[in-house]
Amino acid sequence: MSPILSSAESSIIESPIRRIAQLLEKAGADPDIISFGGGAPSLAPPKEVVNAMISSLKKDAFKAVSYTSTKGLPSLREKIAGDLTRSGDAVEPSQIALTTGATGGLFTALEDIINPGEEIVVSDPTYVGYEGPALIDRAKIRRVPVKKENDFQLTPDLVNEAITKKTKAIIILSPDNPTGRIQKKKNVKGIADIAKDNNLWIVSDDTYKDIIYEGSHTYVHKYAPENTITACAFSKSSSLPGLRLGYVYGPKEAINGITKLSQYIMLCPNKLSQTAAESFYSVKDSYLKESVIPVYKKKREVMGEMIKKHLPICNYVKPHGAFYYFIDLCDSKLDDEEFCNRLLEERKVVAIPGKYFGNEGKGHIRLTFVSESEKRIEEGVLKIKDFMEEL
Amino acid sequence: MSPILSSAESSIIESPIRRIAQLLEKAGADPDIISFGGGAPSLAPPKEVVNAMISSLKKDAFKAVSYTSTKGLPSLREKIAGDLTRSGDAVEPSQIALTTGATGGLFTALEDIINPGEEIVVSDPTYVGYEGPALIDRAKIRRVPVKKENDFQLTPDLVNEAITKKTKAIIILSPDNPTGRIQKKKNVKGIADIAKDNNLWIVSDDTYKDIIYEGSHTYVHKYAPENTITACAFSKSSSLPGLRLGYVYGPKEAINGITKLSQYIMLCPNKLSQTAAESFYSVKDSYLKESVIPVYKKKREVMGEMIKKHLPICNYVKPHGAFYYFIDLCDSKLDDEEFCNRLLEERKVVAIPGKYFGNEGKGHIRLTFVSESEKRIEEGVLKIKDFMEEL
Repeated sequence: MSPILSSAESSIIESPIRRIAQLLEKAGADPDIISFGGGAPSLAPPKEVVNAMISSLKKDAFKAVSYTSTKGLPSLREKIAGDLTRSGDAVEPSQIALTTGATGGLFTALEDIINPGEEIVVSDPTYVGYEGPALIDRAKIRRVPVKKENDFQLTPDLVNEAITKKTKAIIILSPDNPTGRIQKKKNVKGIADIAKDNNLWIVSDDTYKDIIYEGSHTYVHKYAPENTITACAFSKSSSLPGLRLGYVYGPKEAINGITKLSQYIMLCPNKLSQTAAESFYSVKDSYLKESVIPVYKKKREVMGEMIKKHLPICNYVKPHGAFYYFIDLCDSKLDDEEFCNRLLEERKVVAIPGKYFGNEGKGHIRLTFVSESEKRIEEGVLKIKDFMEEL
Repeated sequence: MSPILSSAESSIIESPIRRIAQLLEKAGADPDIISFGGGAPSLAPPKEVVNAMISSLKKDAFKAVSYTSTKGLPSLREKIAGDLTRSGDAVEPSQIALTTGATGGLFTALEDIINPGEEIVVSDPTYVGYEGPALIDRAKIRRVPVKKENDFQLTPDLVNEAITKKTKAIIILSPDNPTGRIQKKKNVKGIADIAKDNNLWIVSDDTYKDIIYEGSHTYVHKYAPENTITACAFSKSSSLPGLRLGYVYGPKEAINGITKLSQYIMLCPNKLSQTAAESFYSVKDSYLKESVIPVYKKKREVMGEMIKKHLPICNYVKPHGAFYYFIDLCDSKLDDEEFCNRLLEERKVVAIPGKYFGNEGKGHIRLTFVSESEKRIEEGVLKIKDFMEEL
C-alpha cells in the first residue's frame, strides 16, 4: 500500500471540464459527438504564427528549443508591454513574466500572494479554475452571488459585503466564463478603490479580454496598479491553446516573486511557444478584427437564434464576450449534472453542468458556441430540444 | 504601496542558476563568454523530432496546437510505458502523467504527497531545485551530507539516521547533479526497503538516467513500486530543454492526484512538445548511442584532462553520468561564490558556486562539460588556471 497523499491533493476535486476533455480524447474521432463542452477556439492560428515556428525550427533547431530565462524572452516581453500600453494600460517589460497559460499565471499569482487560511472573493457563478489553486494554497474561496437581473455584475457593494479580516484578494474575470458578462467600468473602478482602501490584492483574469462582441474591456490594473496582478493567455485570442503560454503583469516586486516561484514550477516558459507569441503581435489586430471576432460573432448569432427558437423555456442573457451561452433550464425535471450526463449518453451532445461554476449555476448549462461549425451548432441545439421534449 | 506577498514567496530564494541564465540572456550573443554554467544540452534535437513538429504544423496547424487531456496523449503515454518496460521497469500507460519538464513533475509530485511541516530527506550536495518546491509546500528539507570519499553515495545508513517522525519522503537523484555519481544498486535497494518499512515516499529524479558513461541506472520504482514517484524529462536525453516536457510515473492513485493538481497548475501539457516526444522514441536508442553519449563522453575526457593538467591543486571525482565536474577548490583564497563572480567578471568564464548545492558544496565549483565545444572547454579551463594563479 502506498503512503498517504497530501491534504492539498485530497481537498481538491478533479476539474469537471478537464474530465470531459479526457473522455472526448478517449472517444477519439467519434464524429457524431457534438461538443459544446470545452473552451477551445475553433480557428487555426494565424499562418504567420505557424510559419514563424516552422522557420525557427528549420533555421536553427538547437536554438528553437533551448531554455530561456524564467521571466521569458526580453523581446517578447517588450512586444506585450507595447501592446498593453497601446491598449490603454501602460506597462513596462520588467513588469511582465511569461507563464504556462493563464492557468499557470493564476496559480503562481495566488501562490505569490495568498497564505493558508486567507480568503479570496470571487463571483458566483464564475470559472471553475479558482477553487483548485486556492485549495492547494490552503486558502478559502468566498463566493459572491451575482444575478442575471443585474447582468451578473460583481458590484462594489457585493464585494464590500463579502470582505472579512481574512480577505487577501479579489478575483475579477471579465469577460466572464460562463456568463459572458463584461464588468462595467464603474464597477471595475469601485472594486479597485476597495482594494486600495483595504490593502487587498486584485487578481484580474483577462483571458478573454480580446474576445468582446459589444462594449470594451476595462483594465483593473490601470485603476489600482499597485494592487493588481493581471493574468492573460495566448490560448484564446491567438488560437494557440495547446502551446500553453500566457503572461502575468503587475507591480515589479510581485512579478519578481512569481518569477522566483516559477523557477521551481516550470523552470522557464516554452521557447517555441514564445516564438509563436512574438510573431502573433505582427498580425494580432487584423487576425482578431477579420477572423476571430466576425467568425465567433456569427456563431454566437446562430446559437442564439436556435436557442430562442427551439428552447423557448430556457432563459439566458446574451453574452457580450467570451465563448459561452449560460442557460437557465428553468425547472427542468433533471438536475443539471444528470441533464448533461444523459444528453451526452443519449444524444451525443456535450454541455457543461452549471453547478460546476458555483451554487448560482445550479439548474443551468453552459454551451460553448465557438467550437463547432454553424451547421453542427444547429444540429446540436435541435438535439437538446428533442432531448428536453422527451424528458 | 502593494499589499504584502505570501510567506511562500518570501521564504524561497531565487535559483542562482536561473539568475545566471537571465544574466547570460541579457549579455545576449557576447561570444567571449565561455559558459560552464547551465545544464543545457549542446546538441540539436534529432532531425526526425524536428521534422515531426514541422509536419504536424504543416498538416493541420489547428490540431498541432490544440488542448490535450491533462495526463497527456494516450499514444505518447503508451510509448513511454513501452520504453520503461523494455528498460526493466514495468509500467502501464495509466501510471504515467506528462508534466512541464521534470521541474513540473517534481513540483506536482511534492504537492501531491507533502503537508506543511513534514520533512524531506535529500543528499548534500545535490540539485538546487528541491528546496524551492519544499518551501512552497511549507515543508522542510533535511540534508544528509554525502562524502567524496564514499563516491557521494546516499547510503541506507545515512537515510536511517536522517529519518524522524516528520519524514514523509526521500528524494534520490541519480545520476546526480552536481557530482555525477550513480547510486549503487545495493544503496537503491536499501533505501527502497527503508521507504517500505517506514511508509515513506521516494521521489526519484531520473532526469539524467539516459546520460550514463559507465555503469547503469537502477530504477528505485522497481524495488518499491507502491512508494515511488519517478520524475523524468525529455530535456536532457532528447535535447529539447525549451519544450518543457517531462513525465511522472508511480502508483495510479498518486499519479491521478498529480493529474488533478496539474489541472490547476498547467491545465495540460504542450501538444507540440508531446508530438516531438512521441517521435523521439523512434530514434531514441540510436540518438543516444551514436550522438549524445559519444559526444558528451569526449567532452568529459577533454575537460577532465585539462583539469588534471592545469588545475592540479583541485580535487574531484570523475563523473559517471550527467553533465558536470564538481571540483573542490582545496582552500582557494576565495569563497566559492566570490570565486565565480570574479571569474565571470575578470575572465568571462561562467562556473556555478558549490555552496548552491548545499553546505557540503562550499569551496567547490560546478563546471558543465557538455555545453561548450572542445576547443572552448580547453580555453575556459586555461582561463580558470590563469585566474587561480593570479589570485
